[in-house]
Amino acid sequence: MLRLYDYLDSGNAYKIRLLLSQLGLPFERVEVDIRQGTTRRPEFLAKNPNQRIPLLEWPDGRRLAESNAILFHLAEGTAFLPDDAWERAETMQWMFFEQYSHEPYIAVVRAWHHNGLVEENSAALPAKMEAGNHALNVMEQHLKTCRFFAGDRYSIADIALYAYTHVADEGGFDLAGYPAVGDWLERVAGQPGHVRIADPVGTLVSWP
Amino acid sequence: MLRLYDYLDSGNAYKIRLLLSQLGLPFERVEVDIRQGTTRRPEFLAKNPNQRIPLLEWPDGRRLAESNAILFHLAEGTAFLPDDAWERAETMQWMFFEQYSHEPYIAVVRAWHHNGLVEENSAALPAKMEAGNHALNVMEQHLKTCRFFAGDRYSIADIALYAYTHVADEGGFDLAGYPAVGDWLERVAGQPGHVRIADPVGTLVSWP
Repeated sequence: MLRLYDYLDSGNAYKIRLLLSQLGLPFERVEVDIRQGTTRRPEFLAKNPNQRIPLLEWPDGRRLAESNAILFHLAEGTAFLPDDAWERAETMQWMFFEQYSHEPYIAVVRAWHHNGLVEENSAALPAKMEAGNHALNVMEQHLKTCRFFAGDRYSIADIALYAYTHVADEGGFDLAGYPAVGDWLERVAGQPGHVRIADPVGTLVSWP
Repeated sequence: MLRLYDYLDSGNAYKIRLLLSQLGLPFERVEVDIRQGTTRRPEFLAKNPNQRIPLLEWPDGRRLAESNAILFHLAEGTAFLPDDAWERAETMQWMFFEQYSHEPYIAVVRAWHHNGLVEENSAALPAKMEAGNHALNVMEQHLKTCRFFAGDRYSIADIALYAYTHVADEGGFDLAGYPAVGDWLERVAGQPGHVRIADPVGTLVSWP
C-alpha cells in the first residue's frame, strides 16, 4: 500500500491526502511531527535528505518528495491533470506560482500563528503579509474570469492552491477582500470526494 | 516568433535561453530591467500580474510565466523531458526542489551581491547561507551516485538546477566543498548546444 509521511496541520501534506482520497487510492499515513525535529533524524534523512514532508513511498521502496511533484505523478493519466499540452503548461505555471509566490508567505505566516512564533517574527511579518496579499490578488484577478486555474475545470492546480488558501485566515489574511477567491474555494470544496484538512483519511500507522 | 521577456543576469531567465538554444528555436528577447520596477508598470502587469520574468509569449498572444513551467512546456515531447512516468516524476521533484529549497537562498544571496544589498540584509544572510548550503549538500548526495538528476541523462531538471548553481560562487557559496556538484556542472556545460548565462542568444528587440 502507498505510505504517506504526513503531518496533519501541513497544507502541503493535505494536498496529497485530498488527491489520494479523490482518486480512491487507499494509503497508510505516518504522522511526522515536524516541530520535534523528526525530519532531521537519520531514519527520515535516509528517505528524504531534504528533510521535508510530505513524502510518498510505494510498496517497492520508490519515494517521491515535493508536494506538487507528487500531485503531478498521481494525476498523470487522470482527469485531475489536463491532456492538452497548453492546459498542462498552465497547470504547472500555477503550481510553481503556488510554491514560489504563495506558500512561502501564506503558509509560513499561518505556521507562525499555529506555533506561537508571531512575536519573534514581528519584524518580518509586514513583508510576509504584503507578499501573501499580492498572491491572493493575482489569484483574484484570474478567478474573476475563470472558474478554475487551468483548463476550465478542477485540477491539481486547484488542489495545490486550495491547500493553504482555504486556511489563510488562520494566518490573519482577510479573504473578504477576495470575493472571487471565496467563490472558488466553495467550488473546490464541492468537488466529489472532497475531504477537509483535518479529516481522518488513510490508515494511521506508527513509524519507525 | 517566440518572444522572451528576459533579464540577462537572471538565472531563471537563463534557463529559458539555454533550452530554447538547445532546441534550436529562434526567439526574440526583450530586456526587462527588473531593478527599475519595469515589471510593475501597467504594460507588463497586463502580461504577467505576478510581476516576474521570465515570461514567454507566443505569436498568437498566449503567454506562460514561471521558469520551470516554461521549461516543462517547451520540453514535452523532446529528449529534455523523460517519457517514463517515474522519471518524469523525479524531474518534477527536482524542479520543485529548485524553486522552493534552492533558488530562494542561492539566487537571492547572489542578487544581493550583484546589487549592493548585502549590508542591508546582513541579519538575514547567515540563515540564507545555511539554507543554500543545505540545498547544495542535498544535490551533492544525489550526484555522488547519479550523473544527472532524473533518468540518468540530461533533462530540464539539470537545466533548472544548473542556472543558479553554476554562479553560486557569486553569492559567496564555496563549491569546492561539493566535488560531485562540480563534476556535474562540467557535464552540463559540455552538453550539445550549451550557451552561457551572458551569451548573446536570441534577437534583442525593444519594448514597449
